[in-house]
Amino acid sequence: MVCDFYELTMSNGYFKKGLHKKKAYFDMFYRSTPDNGGFAIAAGLEQFIDYIEALRFTKYDIEFLRSKKIFDEGFLEYLANFKFSGDVYGVPEGTPIFPNEPILTIRAPIIEAQLIETFTLLALNHQSLIATKANRIVRAANGRAVFEFGSRRAQGADGAILGARAAYIGGCSGTACAVSEQIYGVPAGGTMAHSWVQMFDSEYEAFKTYCEIYPEDTTLLVDTYDTLRSGVPNAIKVFKEVLIPKGITNFNIRLDSGDIAYLSKKARKMLDDAGLKNCKIIASNSLDEHIIQSLLVQGAKVDAFGVGERLITSKSSPVFGGVYKLVAIEDEAGNITPKIKLSDNVTKITNPHFKKAYRLFDKNTNEAVADYICVHDETIDESKSLKLFDPNVVWKGKVLRNYTAKELLVPIFKDGVKVYNSPTVHEIKRYCKEQVSLLWDEVKRFENPHIYYVNLSEKLWDVKQELLKQQKGNSENNNNGINLGDK
Amino acid sequence: MVCDFYELTMSNGYFKKGLHKKKAYFDMFYRSTPDNGGFAIAAGLEQFIDYIEALRFTKYDIEFLRSKKIFDEGFLEYLANFKFSGDVYGVPEGTPIFPNEPILTIRAPIIEAQLIETFTLLALNHQSLIATKANRIVRAANGRAVFEFGSRRAQGADGAILGARAAYIGGCSGTACAVSEQIYGVPAGGTMAHSWVQMFDSEYEAFKTYCEIYPEDTTLLVDTYDTLRSGVPNAIKVFKEVLIPKGITNFNIRLDSGDIAYLSKKARKMLDDAGLKNCKIIASNSLDEHIIQSLLVQGAKVDAFGVGERLITSKSSPVFGGVYKLVAIEDEAGNITPKIKLSDNVTKITNPHFKKAYRLFDKNTNEAVADYICVHDETIDESKSLKLFDPNVVWKGKVLRNYTAKELLVPIFKDGVKVYNSPTVHEIKRYCKEQVSLLWDEVKRFENPHIYYVNLSEKLWDVKQELLKQQKGNSENNNNGINLGDK
Repeated sequence: MVCDFYELTMSNGYFKKGLHKKKAYFDMFYRSTPDNGGFAIAAGLEQFIDYIEALRFTKYDIEFLRSKKIFDEGFLEYLANFKFSGDVYGVPEGTPIFPNEPILTIRAPIIEAQLIETFTLLALNHQSLIATKANRIVRAANGRAVFEFGSRRAQGADGAILGARAAYIGGCSGTACAVSEQIYGVPAGGTMAHSWVQMFDSEYEAFKTYCEIYPEDTTLLVDTYDTLRSGVPNAIKVFKEVLIPKGITNFNIRLDSGDIAYLSKKARKMLDDAGLKNCKIIASNSLDEHIIQSLLVQGAKVDAFGVGERLITSKSSPVFGGVYKLVAIEDEAGNITPKIKLSDNVTKITNPHFKKAYRLFDKNTNEAVADYICVHDETIDESKSLKLFDPNVVWKGKVLRNYTAKELLVPIFKDGVKVYNSPTVHEIKRYCKEQVSLLWDEVKRFENPHIYYVNLSEKLWDVKQELLKQQKGNSENNNNGINLGDK
Repeated sequence: MVCDFYELTMSNGYFKKGLHKKKAYFDMFYRSTPDNGGFAIAAGLEQFIDYIEALRFTKYDIEFLRSKKIFDEGFLEYLANFKFSGDVYGVPEGTPIFPNEPILTIRAPIIEAQLIETFTLLALNHQSLIATKANRIVRAANGRAVFEFGSRRAQGADGAILGARAAYIGGCSGTACAVSEQIYGVPAGGTMAHSWVQMFDSEYEAFKTYCEIYPEDTTLLVDTYDTLRSGVPNAIKVFKEVLIPKGITNFNIRLDSGDIAYLSKKARKMLDDAGLKNCKIIASNSLDEHIIQSLLVQGAKVDAFGVGERLITSKSSPVFGGVYKLVAIEDEAGNITPKIKLSDNVTKITNPHFKKAYRLFDKNTNEAVADYICVHDETIDESKSLKLFDPNVVWKGKVLRNYTAKELLVPIFKDGVKVYNSPTVHEIKRYCKEQVSLLWDEVKRFENPHIYYVNLSEKLWDVKQELLKQQKGNSENNNNGINLGDK
């Protein structure tokens, strides 16, 4: 029942009109990358799969819908027996993705395809958003560990729990969110809040007690009262009194307020002077990719970062604008009719038809050079050169030779049955790192990234132009003599 | 188990040190208002209450924690029998709230108070964020209905479902999210997507079919192909052919792309010329309070708004920065010791002690003039004048006469038992509207709103100054001879 109400009204309409057995093709794709980035990271497929497998309407749901008094009894009965029976093709989680290429393609009877719209979008939009942001932050940290700390500022519990999962896929080393480990295996950890320090008569006593209980890889939060005059000196004292005598050398301090660049350098000096060169410094407090880059440029002595609200909400760009659009219908004989949506905003015009998508790699460098979207029955022959052209500026093009082509979407469901084995979250994280490494550096930079080429095949381009022409003709013959004014 | 891992490590530590029966006081408050607004709207209390009542650790949770190999068996046994036994005071949902005043105060044994930190924050932060944003958007719409349409762009399913609840509290008229009606009673509705129009051989046929199935209060989406050349003319034709003959006059069109100001005026003219003056125009597509204000300034002919991603994520300001801080501890004899957190950022210094908060209203105008935070054992005598002063600039002050004082926080739990009856979501929405109407217009404007006065009592101010002095002294005596450098 996590759906938009219009999916129910439309489905009831399809049912009443006997259209509900007609098969429709929907694509999910997105139009622009958060933070004006060069690419996004796909995530959320596993939750989509779980949803499709569990999707049923309970007696309670049917009662609720009946109470609205607009739904046909036959339709309610249909819902009571509902089970997804369609095919799904999807991009594996952790894959870099680009605007206007299909991330997910659904082929299913129209009602089934329509009813799953909202959850499908929200699952993939949310986690792709956070995985994309996490990947930016992790790249900014340049090899240093980044921990996800943002549960308390997440937009709801799912935002926290699945956000931690997506952050891990994007490259974070772990999370503070305990339940994300329990459910998804995302490594969770944490040590103390300011309240721990306040609960004791002194900061020294609070630190000492903590190190006695948790001697291994402990982290002391040093900014409750005064970082340099109290926190760091007390931490040094306790490390020397409690841990060093036991031969323990893996311990850390955390800076959570103030001028991190300044404080980290001062704290580093104090730790080094005390002979604690091994003590690591963790920084947190309103960090994101830009502040982390700036801290590193300033020579801040930070070994790891904890990132909260700016990651878990993707604060600077908190929406992943994935959409779900009808691209074709199929009659009972299996004939596919491509469909287009025009819109008054040119950028909102869709790519029609049941499609395939390839990523093309240069055989010499192994780098991804372009993606290539074609009609479902086209194939790429790697032994032949491939003509690429800009779908918006068609005279701009090039001929690609010596490449490999890899299909982006893989089968997920066939006739409602899952045919895909979800990798573990650790495998997805590794896959993501590897795939991002195959992108050009110019696509990865934060400022004005290079726009990666997403090309259409000639056949697909022709289908699109034909539909545009057709539809334009329809509209012009269709205004019923009403004066449209002068625009 | 929706908690940050450090809450578990700290709690284990308190347990081992025998501190777990010590009572602590925590305040939840926020530091700055999203979108630089003049006030926020409290929401999420009902979900906090449900959480506290349901809070248990299952066998599965205990097994998971045991597997981490850092928790004491006695502590795990304590968790297995965990039940919240504390007192809670909270601001009712729908109340306008201001920075640095308590929204929620917890008095409970330290472990109980610590373990609920993350969920408490995320529940109240999330819904307060969305209720606050919705209230801004509804105020911008100036009496026109605003519908929440954003589920697909929400940050997770809770973001969608509870976001719709919060948006309704903040003033929206309804939501597209079906399950929010089912669970929370938020009115849900919706009509058609572009896919409905695409499924038929023509837009005309799609519209006609829809109006036949749903003749009452129907809304046709007119931008699938060409708003003015195809969508509006087809809608007019269908309204006249199908609905007018049946005597039905409550129907609408929806514009979802293009230049809404221009298109709405043109569409209005076309509808009026066709004799359909009663047909309402609904607009959607990346709206927020600023775009709605601008559309109305431009004279757009829009009767209702559908708002998606910019509301459900509070896109322009997607974090509500509520925090949860220890403010006092209580010994077994019932003596309360106030606690403070200093921090290197002055704005992060907390207001110590177990406190009460009052809203003061001018008896003549009934307007809210200031909030007043005092120590728990202070009371306000309305028959006497009240001295107010700026807690940061103490020579700025005034004497208030002829006022009424209303306590902001009400008892929610007493000894772990709920003592509060949650109002319905409809009652909360009405309460919110009424309470916002008592605020000065200057506090409600979007640009540079007046900063509403949140004052401390003299007694509370003295407690805070005393703790600041004390703590500063501690830090200075505490640096163990380590060279701090020149800052």
